[in-house]
Amino acid sequence: MSTTITAVDVHDVRFPTARDGDGSDAINRGDYSATYVELRTDAGPTGAGFTFTNGRGNEITCAAVHALAHHVTGRTVEEIAAEPVAFWRSLTADVQLRWLGPEKGVIHMAAGALVNAVWDLRAKLADRPLWRFLADLPTAELVANIDFRHITDALTPDEAASILDKGLIGLADRCAELDRDGFPSYTTSVGWLGYPDDKVRALTRAAYGQGWRAMKMKVGGELADDLRRARIIRAEIGPDALLMMDANQVWDVDEAIEKMAVLAEVEPYWIEEPTHADDVLGHARIAQAVAPVRVATGEVAANRVMFKQFLQAGALGVMQIDACRVAGVNEVLAELLLAAKFGVPVCPHAGGVGLCEYVQHLAIFDYLRVGTALTGRMVEYVDHLHEHFVDPVRTRDGRYLLPDQPGYSSTMRPESIARFSFPDGPAWR
Amino acid sequence: MSTTITAVDVHDVRFPTARDGDGSDAINRGDYSATYVELRTDAGPTGAGFTFTNGRGNEITCAAVHALAHHVTGRTVEEIAAEPVAFWRSLTADVQLRWLGPEKGVIHMAAGALVNAVWDLRAKLADRPLWRFLADLPTAELVANIDFRHITDALTPDEAASILDKGLIGLADRCAELDRDGFPSYTTSVGWLGYPDDKVRALTRAAYGQGWRAMKMKVGGELADDLRRARIIRAEIGPDALLMMDANQVWDVDEAIEKMAVLAEVEPYWIEEPTHADDVLGHARIAQAVAPVRVATGEVAANRVMFKQFLQAGALGVMQIDACRVAGVNEVLAELLLAAKFGVPVCPHAGGVGLCEYVQHLAIFDYLRVGTALTGRMVEYVDHLHEHFVDPVRTRDGRYLLPDQPGYSSTMRPESIARFSFPDGPAWR
Repeated sequence: MSTTITAVDVHDVRFPTARDGDGSDAINRGDYSATYVELRTDAGPTGAGFTFTNGRGNEITCAAVHALAHHVTGRTVEEIAAEPVAFWRSLTADVQLRWLGPEKGVIHMAAGALVNAVWDLRAKLADRPLWRFLADLPTAELVANIDFRHITDALTPDEAASILDKGLIGLADRCAELDRDGFPSYTTSVGWLGYPDDKVRALTRAAYGQGWRAMKMKVGGELADDLRRARIIRAEIGPDALLMMDANQVWDVDEAIEKMAVLAEVEPYWIEEPTHADDVLGHARIAQAVAPVRVATGEVAANRVMFKQFLQAGALGVMQIDACRVAGVNEVLAELLLAAKFGVPVCPHAGGVGLCEYVQHLAIFDYLRVGTALTGRMVEYVDHLHEHFVDPVRTRDGRYLLPDQPGYSSTMRPESIARFSFPDGPAWR
Repeated sequence: MSTTITAVDVHDVRFPTARDGDGSDAINRGDYSATYVELRTDAGPTGAGFTFTNGRGNEITCAAVHALAHHVTGRTVEEIAAEPVAFWRSLTADVQLRWLGPEKGVIHMAAGALVNAVWDLRAKLADRPLWRFLADLPTAELVANIDFRHITDALTPDEAASILDKGLIGLADRCAELDRDGFPSYTTSVGWLGYPDDKVRALTRAAYGQGWRAMKMKVGGELADDLRRARIIRAEIGPDALLMMDANQVWDVDEAIEKMAVLAEVEPYWIEEPTHADDVLGHARIAQAVAPVRVATGEVAANRVMFKQFLQAGALGVMQIDACRVAGVNEVLAELLLAAKFGVPVCPHAGGVGLCEYVQHLAIFDYLRVGTALTGRMVEYVDHLHEHFVDPVRTRDGRYLLPDQPGYSSTMRPESIARFSFPDGPAWR
């Protein structure tokens, strides 16, 4: 029995979030959107994947998925699983399309949507949530899913196998622990730049009441405003809870160091994206200067080669991965193993639309099979747009509960796709 | 009098080069294509710009230009010239579209096509070739065209002004020298991977006969094949002419070091793209290991922040810029000044379609006003597709002659646009 992917459907789905100031920061103000991909098959289940975009331009990533779709249509799930790197490279190293990246931006995000849809399909066919499906794969098969080209100077297949083998020890105990307690998270819903002080205070108080002990605020506006809002949050959450800051790349390197010297007053746990996301050497300088405040980045890190360098340079105290900025689960596996090799905890980026649904699986797999410690590990949580998913995230007391439906939790409700399709859905007409 | 940009026309133009093996290397095999942009105005002249792509996917960069065009339509050339960084950021830091890069790949290349079209228009309105127009701009105006955000840790506006002021000394002499002798170049037409040995030998002999004393070959196939082809070229050109090698990112870091230890036999002048183009730290390691062979890269370096790091890390012996991978002339100005600050010569990437036409202006300006020495400076030359341009490059004895028509030499012949438009032009029907 084999399952053939017979067609790739692409939907341009956009949610009008910009008008409320949700998701506003020093750089972005978006209508959270998804380039949503459905793989139809001859076997019943469909594979669902998407990449997240910020509104305008979602048609560009849709065009990129169309340009790559011929590498997927007509393939069987079994042949993809048998030669996963060959399949992955057919998308990421197409001899004509690679030029448009290479391995970055629109074309890489589109590859990620397709790769993730295949993983959703594989997990559904195995009748397992993706985290469980991955955690149960033999070490050799996990290693075979990783393209080690361009990262062997930092991580070899043998080193990866050794990390994954060690991850088998105590796996059942860690799984039972998560089933009982859930996975730690933090919330970013309290401190968007677009929110007035009173709203920040009220949201912080509410989040604390719901159990969250780690909150993230946006910085990068006027320093006095950043400090005032930070003091409000710190006053609400007390000295023991974690306060993280996110500058969304707005500062220059020296400016980041100067501003953080002031913001250190409120004892931030990390500063996220203090400068341009491509600036490995800049992040390394900042990390040295702002310690013990940790530097975090990764939500727009283009690929595994960028993560490799951030780790080699000692630039990261916390590594943030994104589920759909890179080319899907295969590349994330490489990133999780690189982080483990360098001893840096992974705290996935989420929010937007569907990112929480995606990354919970990756964080859980990371803990179960790669990182094996919860210290310093938490998943971002933003309370937006979950209602559009068939299997939305569930949280309790500031923790993610284990997803139990088959697949990657990436399937969107048909009525949401129809209503928010751009430009012809009723929400946009 | 002001000139208003009234409309942005976008053409998907593709040349069927893949079938002949032109442009084939270890990673790419393309149909050289242009996302071609025409700015219509109310004043007569149109502005022409493009970004180069490798065939399939050219529709994606076209879609990205359409998504950005509203930032250009309705603007006057004069207001753009008065606030150039504000204009540049409207394209590169759009609050919704920036997410698709940020500042890299499809969306950044599309911004470059538009930015370059504006520079073509400005030079045409001034009735000057772009190199002349730029070389004659006052230092303060050149500096005002550069977005220093994220590079001030390596280059400040004052340092840039100081370099440009020094470039005024001897400007007329350097200009007369280029007018007499032309600008040095090298040819890449001799050693594409798709060519058999006899063709490599014949092309090398012919190029040497035409005056070229610097030739580039592709490597990254089987090491024995690379070495055999390199020996053929070295035998033809003798010990004094330069032989450059280009691996197009195919090697891992340690592999590059090992392979170059063997290829050192033929005394290469540089090794280009020895590993993944994003790997600043990897290039730095390779540069140390392969000296005195120089490491060169840059044709797919996404933005000025990447170039900044390559220079800071000491990874480059030769810096290659591309005219349309980054967001146009404004960003290239930053790159040229960064290279000058770090004392690294710039040898622009060309070839494809229209890249020679573009980069000759940048190299000439660099010599006249920034670098002020020809030592180690040369422009790539590939003898393909020049006939499609209204003002094609002209060479003599392996040197580029100064362009003398107004603009950026970026205007394509209308009949070529019509014939090679994809998918409806006669060449594709």
